[in-house]
Amino acid sequence: MYLSTTLAEGAATQLTLGGGDRIVVGVVAVVALVALAVGFILRREVLAAGEGTQKMQEIGQAVQEGAVAYLNRQFRTLAVFVVIVFALLFALPADDLAERIGRSIFFLVGAAFSAAIGYLGMRLATFANIRVAAAAREEGGREKATRIAFRTGGVVGMFTVGLGLLGATIVVLVYAGQAPKVLEGFGFGAALLAMFMRVGGGIFTKAADVGADLVGKVEQNIPEDDPRNAATIADNVGDNVGDCAGMAADLFESYAVTLVAALILGTAAFGLQGLLFPLIVPAIGVITAIIGVYITRAREGENGLTTINRSFYYSALISAVLSVFAAFVYLPSSFAELGNPTDTGVVAEMGGADPRIIASAAVLIGIVLAGIILWLTGYFTGTEHKPVKTVGESSLTGPATVILAGISIGFESAVYTALVISAAVFGAFALATGSVTVSLFAVALAGTGLLTTVGVIVAMDTFGPVSDNAQGIAEMSGDVEGKGVDILTELDAVGNTTKAITKGIAIATAVLAATALFGSYRDAINLALQKAGAAIEDLAYAVFTPSTLVGVVIGASVVFMFSGLAINAVSRAAGAIVFEVRRQFRDNPGIMEGTVRPEYGRVVDICTKDSLRELATPGLLAIFAPIAVGFGLGVGPLAGYLAGAIACGTLMAVFLANSGGAWDNAKKLVEDGHHGGKGSPAHAATVIGDTVGDPFKDTAGPAINPLIKVMNLVAVLIAPAVVTLSVGSSASPTWRVIIALVAVVIIIAAIVTSKRRTTTITDTPTESKVS
Amino acid sequence: MYLSTTLAEGAATQLTLGGGDRIVVGVVAVVALVALAVGFILRREVLAAGEGTQKMQEIGQAVQEGAVAYLNRQFRTLAVFVVIVFALLFALPADDLAERIGRSIFFLVGAAFSAAIGYLGMRLATFANIRVAAAAREEGGREKATRIAFRTGGVVGMFTVGLGLLGATIVVLVYAGQAPKVLEGFGFGAALLAMFMRVGGGIFTKAADVGADLVGKVEQNIPEDDPRNAATIADNVGDNVGDCAGMAADLFESYAVTLVAALILGTAAFGLQGLLFPLIVPAIGVITAIIGVYITRAREGENGLTTINRSFYYSALISAVLSVFAAFVYLPSSFAELGNPTDTGVVAEMGGADPRIIASAAVLIGIVLAGIILWLTGYFTGTEHKPVKTVGESSLTGPATVILAGISIGFESAVYTALVISAAVFGAFALATGSVTVSLFAVALAGTGLLTTVGVIVAMDTFGPVSDNAQGIAEMSGDVEGKGVDILTELDAVGNTTKAITKGIAIATAVLAATALFGSYRDAINLALQKAGAAIEDLAYAVFTPSTLVGVVIGASVVFMFSGLAINAVSRAAGAIVFEVRRQFRDNPGIMEGTVRPEYGRVVDICTKDSLRELATPGLLAIFAPIAVGFGLGVGPLAGYLAGAIACGTLMAVFLANSGGAWDNAKKLVEDGHHGGKGSPAHAATVIGDTVGDPFKDTAGPAINPLIKVMNLVAVLIAPAVVTLSVGSSASPTWRVIIALVAVVIIIAAIVTSKRRTTTITDTPTESKVS
Repeated sequence: MYLSTTLAEGAATQLTLGGGDRIVVGVVAVVALVALAVGFILRREVLAAGEGTQKMQEIGQAVQEGAVAYLNRQFRTLAVFVVIVFALLFALPADDLAERIGRSIFFLVGAAFSAAIGYLGMRLATFANIRVAAAAREEGGREKATRIAFRTGGVVGMFTVGLGLLGATIVVLVYAGQAPKVLEGFGFGAALLAMFMRVGGGIFTKAADVGADLVGKVEQNIPEDDPRNAATIADNVGDNVGDCAGMAADLFESYAVTLVAALILGTAAFGLQGLLFPLIVPAIGVITAIIGVYITRAREGENGLTTINRSFYYSALISAVLSVFAAFVYLPSSFAELGNPTDTGVVAEMGGADPRIIASAAVLIGIVLAGIILWLTGYFTGTEHKPVKTVGESSLTGPATVILAGISIGFESAVYTALVISAAVFGAFALATGSVTVSLFAVALAGTGLLTTVGVIVAMDTFGPVSDNAQGIAEMSGDVEGKGVDILTELDAVGNTTKAITKGIAIATAVLAATALFGSYRDAINLALQKAGAAIEDLAYAVFTPSTLVGVVIGASVVFMFSGLAINAVSRAAGAIVFEVRRQFRDNPGIMEGTVRPEYGRVVDICTKDSLRELATPGLLAIFAPIAVGFGLGVGPLAGYLAGAIACGTLMAVFLANSGGAWDNAKKLVEDGHHGGKGSPAHAATVIGDTVGDPFKDTAGPAINPLIKVMNLVAVLIAPAVVTLSVGSSASPTWRVIIALVAVVIIIAAIVTSKRRTTTITDTPTESKVS
Repeated sequence: MYLSTTLAEGAATQLTLGGGDRIVVGVVAVVALVALAVGFILRREVLAAGEGTQKMQEIGQAVQEGAVAYLNRQFRTLAVFVVIVFALLFALPADDLAERIGRSIFFLVGAAFSAAIGYLGMRLATFANIRVAAAAREEGGREKATRIAFRTGGVVGMFTVGLGLLGATIVVLVYAGQAPKVLEGFGFGAALLAMFMRVGGGIFTKAADVGADLVGKVEQNIPEDDPRNAATIADNVGDNVGDCAGMAADLFESYAVTLVAALILGTAAFGLQGLLFPLIVPAIGVITAIIGVYITRAREGENGLTTINRSFYYSALISAVLSVFAAFVYLPSSFAELGNPTDTGVVAEMGGADPRIIASAAVLIGIVLAGIILWLTGYFTGTEHKPVKTVGESSLTGPATVILAGISIGFESAVYTALVISAAVFGAFALATGSVTVSLFAVALAGTGLLTTVGVIVAMDTFGPVSDNAQGIAEMSGDVEGKGVDILTELDAVGNTTKAITKGIAIATAVLAATALFGSYRDAINLALQKAGAAIEDLAYAVFTPSTLVGVVIGASVVFMFSGLAINAVSRAAGAIVFEVRRQFRDNPGIMEGTVRPEYGRVVDICTKDSLRELATPGLLAIFAPIAVGFGLGVGPLAGYLAGAIACGTLMAVFLANSGGAWDNAKKLVEDGHHGGKGSPAHAATVIGDTVGDPFKDTAGPAINPLIKVMNLVAVLIAPAVVTLSVGSSASPTWRVIIALVAVVIIIAAIVTSKRRTTTITDTPTESKVS
């Protein structure tokens, strides 16, 4: 029933690309290159805009330098990790040397692409921020500023889809039938680097933000981004390294891993066409994303979110039509006519079913899923809908009710999002209940449907940190006034919702990719069992087997642990910032009077040092927890572990993102004059909510998506080794125990080290303005 | 491999009790009656204590009346539910009429016992509170007060174990081999009623508490339990109906369901001895609990928690020794000598293994688990350890960092607790990997090991609300002064930690019972499949099957939804209280001056009405969600659903309980003079943390334990019906869809109704003391 029960060993390697197939792949590669070219064109357009006043440029430069310095140090730190993982990957079992080398090399390529997109995106954002701020000062500033911010996002979007598609295409061209194994390396590299960038950048940005708010807004009662606050430059650097670089890497990873999952299953289910069709769908997405970026024009008096939503829905619609068209043109009308699926049972199992209908329906499910998540997230985090209004109202009874309202909205919205994603998985699965292979491929194809929207999504998301930064620079320089300030405030609020939407889409890709990757996990195990001459034992994976159930509990636990560690890391780093800023105010009274410039650089340094130190623990947990479970308890519990992590991770990720988004926008609601407006007790209550939400929505929440993918890919990669050590002539319980113990010791050591770092609070607020 | 693959249909019914067996059961029944007798003796002792001043008695009377009135109304409301479920249960498939009748009748018995224990416990607590307060005024007050509070707990503990054991014993005596099916009804009744009492009581107590705090402490800056606050009587009523009645019913349910799980598996694994041994172990627990309650004596200058811990560890040790002794005396030394396990494969599968060692080790695992949870919870929520100190320190940087610190401690402690419980499950499972039946029975026996500590645990827990109430009455009456106040404050702080410990133990019973019940779930399905002449398909339960994975996600979602609904219900009801108390202050200025008595009754009425209205939605969700998944998606996804609910539920329950406990005790830490003491900004920050924690730890968190059990038992009960409608001659997809749709509609209607109830906030604080 499952892939390898009917998969002749080595069958996959016999696939070769014919001339026509090479043309298809070539066209896809050209589309990928076009995306990169469009990215460069848009980039030039952004850079051509005016750079504003001298003061704005100076601030922009400081932010830029801080961001580049951080990223360079981060890459140096991560290089160590990457080299170690490269070596481990090379040591893992492989079918032949070509696969072994390809998997390790493309691991590096995936990691490098992930890093490159993060770096390029961030660098452009640090150029764009001053330009958006400058545009807001000009005549017709609203349209100009929106345009620059969205075009900046367009660049990042084009690079994301272009490099993702290009990488996958090259692997398919070079490795043909062996591509799936090599792609696992590519996806793993992308996911691993993205996870580290999400965690590190997330800690940096929120430590700076929370630290700046605690001393500035709460203690000293000075506005956000006030230049007297020593943490403001760090806060703006954080927007770039976290919300921009981290997010871009994360979405690239989502793109790459989803594509990888589809390509792995493709040949088994649909044969050669199955390897190529998952490349065609995202290529269509690239084309529609280009259209989407170019058609985005703010209409007079229209909310920025409406503009962005319109371009999303237009490009989703075009993608849908073109994908269905492609399915009917490219695929045959029956499974018998497909180019030899490697799962030889598929043709008989599917009988007279039409692969074109299954493929079209699956892709449509993915596109519709993206639309529903967009709507749901907008509803739960937008200022004009009931949930955020309820949180706003709860500010009248104080901070405690604000927190409770935000948490219950987060819980609830997580459930709806999880159910919608579940429905999509179940719907895709139900398209082909006769064959598990085909149904898993349908789930993966739904993922590629979701991918067609990623270009626009990235553009929407990058919009957030760029306008946030622009507002910061405007405030700090004091060179933007009147209408310009309003424009930037509006753009910033739109950014809050687009950021929450992106996280919802990202976690949906995690669930779809993870479900599909389960197929290759099972496949890897069964192949290894066949080699060892052992029987396939499906009962070991049954959820009611106590050891598998224990796996589910442990998987869910890791999500809680990871979230707790990330939140804790932010609190710890923020505490250090608070003390530094307080110290500067105390030691140098001139700062508060505005006559002395605070030492911004010291705060940036603390953020850099702390976030790089803090990212190791959650990172090690993600890599070594599946190793400990797999080698320690076996492949059944490891499958349970993944299921637990997916289920709990989805809910936790959306809960954290949406609670945080709702609190942030509830604060904006009060600042817009509701419930007493700025300076009222209601405002103070929502500021507290927003501060709690910061590490939720920008550190812990978004990192769960790459976390799930990293753990999934680790599981897929180690599964054959676990089986080899468990059955047959090579069985060695001793080695299994040793490996599991080493993994457990590494995890414990990492957690203990991070505990030891607790900052001991010794001083108190200097001039507290809070009763 | 699994039970029914080798289980001849109807084999279970052929078991009959011999003369010697009847003697064993008789002795257990006598032990149960002794527990009840001891309960009555302790009760008389409590009632014999002095009742304090006239004013204290008046207040006590008001609390009593409110509590009894609430419980009576609650029982009337629940009677409707119970009758409907009784009818549904009667309609479900059964082997014969005796089973059908027995299952439904004992459902009523389980529900009645659950209600009775809640009622008796609460009623006694309302007598004990004034006596504890009165004792604190006397010479040697500390010892006397501790003694009365702990003896009150002893009464509830004795009733819990006595009635639990008695009910199970009667079922075994009357139904012998058919007992397992009837016991499902008994456990379901107990769990269902407990869930409703936990939710209803939890909403009542925290709505009153949060409402009282928001207006009293936060707005008006008057102390807790100040008689001028109209919500104080309701707050004290809440302690009784929630923390006392709800908790007692919950622990009774834990006791009953764990016992049921062990008894169901016993005959399959160990034959007749397997049916009786799980009765012997808790009988030993009853004896040691009696010893534990009597040896509890506070030593001079000793912390109350130390006293209680000592009696816990002593009784756990005695239980351990006696259980091992019982295993070696009662059980034979090989599986071949056992009295015909109904799983006929067991003897061959287990070979030369010694059942005495397996049984002893399993029981010991359970007892050790209880000890570790006790220690872990004490560490994470006790004022003298690092976690609570960290939360306390974080109050220096304001409420936001208090919330973040509490949440990350909650996440972390949940992980450790979940891992310890997992280790226990895995350990018990690993005792007999050769036979799944025996390994599941080992998990269930670990549950009975845990049960031996329940008597003392209940006594510890009841301690909490009684001393909380005593403090309230002392404060309101103004008749306790000086040292007496200190004594009551100390007892109250001890209560906070004992309450958190109880929740940890309760959730552990949920995991052990649920894991064991999975055996009977699978068994029920396979029997139904055999009847329908269909094949057993284990792959359907594999976690990597997309539909099962979707089940896992939905199961985890229900936990989030349930928690969100419960927290929301508290916020909503608390909002109503806030407006009422504000209105009374505004309309009648004499209240604030202390010349006019506030209308306490109105607040009690609002709490009663609101909590009864609010308990329906989460309750309906618990019953109908598994029905929707089971009939709608099938038995594989329903198994996934249970696994997701267990994994996520365990983590969520402990997270909510421990975060709440840590916040509460961090507040006490500050009130003891740390970080600025009472009235400082740090104190205000911890009060906010405590308010957020209230619905976490006393409403949503503790209700998850009965939630898991209810959903598990619903799944076990409906499984045969799902199979009957799915395969063979009786298959009817139409009926499956109709039933699933009805369930979904009921859930949606319940959620929509609860959404509609959002209280619209129209007024603002009258004389706010907060900037």
